[in-house]
This record gives sequence, C-alpha cells and structure tokens, in this order.
Amino acid sequence: MNLILIDPAELASDGTVTLRDARGRHVQQVLKAAPGTTVRIGLIDGPLGVGTITDAAEDSVALQCAFGETPPRPAVDLLLALPRPKVMRRLWAQLSALGVGRIILTNAARVERNYFDTHVLSPGCYRPLLLEGLQQARDTRVPPVTIHRQFRQLVEDDLDALSDAPLRLVTHPGATATIRDAISNQRGKRVLLAVGPEGGWNAFELDLLEGHAFQRVGMGPRTLRSDTGCVALIAVSHEAIRENRES
Amino acid sequence: MNLILIDPAELASDGTVTLRDARGRHVQQVLKAAPGTTVRIGLIDGPLGVGTITDAAEDSVALQCAFGETPPRPAVDLLLALPRPKVMRRLWAQLSALGVGRIILTNAARVERNYFDTHVLSPGCYRPLLLEGLQQARDTRVPPVTIHRQFRQLVEDDLDALSDAPLRLVTHPGATATIRDAISNQRGKRVLLAVGPEGGWNAFELDLLEGHAFQRVGMGPRTLRSDTGCVALIAVSHEAIRENRES
Repeated sequence: MNLILIDPAELASDGTVTLRDARGRHVQQVLKAAPGTTVRIGLIDGPLGVGTITDAAEDSVALQCAFGETPPRPAVDLLLALPRPKVMRRLWAQLSALGVGRIILTNAARVERNYFDTHVLSPGCYRPLLLEGLQQARDTRVPPVTIHRQFRQLVEDDLDALSDAPLRLVTHPGATATIRDAISNQRGKRVLLAVGPEGGWNAFELDLLEGHAFQRVGMGPRTLRSDTGCVALIAVSHEAIRENRES
Repeated sequence: MNLILIDPAELASDGTVTLRDARGRHVQQVLKAAPGTTVRIGLIDGPLGVGTITDAAEDSVALQCAFGETPPRPAVDLLLALPRPKVMRRLWAQLSALGVGRIILTNAARVERNYFDTHVLSPGCYRPLLLEGLQQARDTRVPPVTIHRQFRQLVEDDLDALSDAPLRLVTHPGATATIRDAISNQRGKRVLLAVGPEGGWNAFELDLLEGHAFQRVGMGPRTLRSDTGCVALIAVSHEAIRENRES
C-alpha cells in the first residue's frame, strides 16, 4: 500500500478522516507513522494529497487531509475477452496497477459461457481488488468496468461510446506490426487495446474488429497465458506511449 | 499446452515415446488427436518437432517423433531479488513463458530472510512450473536457476560466469532512461535485467550494480508489485530487442 485511498463519503467537512480498517492498521503497523507525520493519500476518483496524522489510537488513525492534483486518466483502455474466473481474479489488481482507463470485458467464440456466471465479475469482488492495485501504483482513478455478452453488439453499437481512444489495436499471434510501430506517429493519443481469449479471436471477430478501425499488432512468436499476455501488452503499450510523449 | 514437452530419457531408440500422464490425457481429451494425426512436440533443452500418433489407448498415447530446429536461447537473463513465496510461485511459469535465458535469484536488504526457507525454491516445485510455461509458449529450453544468499558475492564474484549478456540493466523507480533507450544501438545483444525487491534496491546495492556495469532504467511513475513488474519489464525488454533486430 503505497497510497491510502479515501472514499469521498469518509471525508468530514473539516477535511479530516478517521481510518478504522486495514488502512488504519497499515499506517500504524507498516508505516509506523506517529502523530505529526504525514502519509500519501488519494481521494477515490479525485486528487492525490498528503494526510497529517492527528491522532493514533489502537484501532483507529485520524488524518487531516490536504489535496493537490488529480492524476491523468491512464492512456490505455482495455477490451478483453473474458478469461477463466481464476485468471480474471488475479488480473483485477494488476490491471489497475498498470493503469487502464476502462475495462471492457466481452464474450467471444472461444470464451466458455459459464465464465460469466462467477462472483469475480461482481463489483463487490472486483472493486476492492481494483482499489488494491491503485494503492500499489499511487493512482486514484478506478477504471469503469462493463461486461458484454454480445460481442457483435458491443463492437458495432456500444464501443464508440465506451472508449474515445482514437487508436485501436487488436493483438493477434503472427501479426508482424509491433505495438510501437502502431503507436509511433500518434503523439500522445490514447489507445484501445483488444486482447483475445486463450485460443485467440476467430476470423469473424478479427474481421469485425478490423472493420471498426482496429489494427492488428503482435508481440512475437510466444503464446502467453491470458494474464501474462495482458500484463505484457499493457506494459508495452504504456512504454510506447511514454516514449512517444517524451521524444 | 501448446506443445508437448518430452524428456530425452523418455524417447526410445526408434524415436517413439509413450505418454501416460497429463500430456497423454491432453492429447486425447483437449486436442482430440486420433492415430495418424500430428501434435507439436519438443525435446526438453533440445529441438522442436512433430509427433505422429501411432496408438491411442484409454490411459496412454504413443507418438512417432520427428525433430527439427532447437529454438534460440531467450535474449533476456533475469536477476531477481527474491519475492514472497506466494509471488515467486506465480512467477515461475510466467517467466519461462515470456522467455528468460537464466533465472538468478538473490537476497537483498529488503528481502525477508525467511523467503529462502520455502519449497517454492526447490527444483521439485519449480521445474514442473517452468515446463508448464515452456509448453504454453512453445519453447524447449528450461532456464537454469541459481539462488544466492550473498548479494555482494553474487555481483562481485559469480555474475560474470552466470550471464554473458553484454548489456546490464537495473530497474529503479524514478530513473528517466527507458529500457528501449538502453537497448537501442545494441543490435541483437542479450540483456541481463536486474529487478529489485518490493521496497527497491538500497543505495549500497544500486552502487554495487552500477559499479558492475548495470545502467539504471525506469518504467514510469507507477510502482508495481514484484510479479506484475517482472512480467512488464521482461515484456518491454523483449519487445525492444525484437524491434531492434527487425529495424
């Protein structure tokens, strides 16, 4: 926990907050912060800031909060064919830590139907995991999550409203263009990255995506598991966008 | 399992092998391969090839093997400060799937001593996980693993013999040079990538690494968990090396 995230509803009108849960224990036991010292804080979906500890009892910590700037929205949106529940559970915190502007989960021909019937897709399960990733990476913006059982309807009707990223990439084994090829010359633009199921997108899905402005990109000859592949692709995308901005 | 890995000791002198374990079940139940059809195979630490199914009984599958080329050694060696056992367990298969030439695990000031006392570091635990990752990524080369409790001795005395990679990078939060900056102009060279513990390398460790030809590189402002960071850094390194070779 490199940042203590605070819900706006927890904040009193005088800018103080009292933490009684794992965050309070973390401040006392891991950070060993005493009254007068400061910790990094963030308001969920709001600004980063500094909390000055005003009181530390056994089961609670009181902070006086001062807020600064709101971090920018991450430059990568993710369109992901729903992986197995076990893999999806592992991914939530990693996605928000890496930084995604939005998470769009979709059905696909090679997605098992029963993957949708899992509590891993309920906000009660994934929201704490997303917050965990944000606290790891010192971000405050919780990526909105939507779940789509109709791939075609998603791509044809819903996607334009979900993601405003002007650059759309679909990863496919064997594609020779690299992510960086596609991102260079697109200075500072946000990217919507489509990552297929373990067995890949089928021909219909690839055609539909390409018909809606997605460019095919690849990441070499190795086939990766969904979670590893997803982390790798998002990292490579961020790195290419960052290089582009700085060059 | 995108590749069936075979131990050289399993191979009969006539080039046949009989699979009775999870591999045999995979061929029958997942690939649904009947006699006469072929499956992708690889000889552990040897060539890739094709296996023609000659016989399929309920509890075994017999293959006639034909081998071709041995895949090249992955271009990235990893020097990793030992993470928590739970994280290390999750990493093994991901590391061999992403492709690492060698895994060098080390102690560091911010590594807990008891992380070394775990069966996750025994070959009986990690070798099957490394093979799982290779079968996912269609590779045959099992990365050698060494474990070092003395960081200074490792860097000063042992590292030159362990990795011949001419380019050495150490990742550190706040470093402004990107991995790609460091890798470009190093056409086709192998890389030794040093990834620190959750809390980072300390000043002594960074100095020692820099004194032994490691260049500092960073990956932006977000702090990642060991496993996410490790996957991200290896992916970005491979991508930079690949672009470099192809440009």
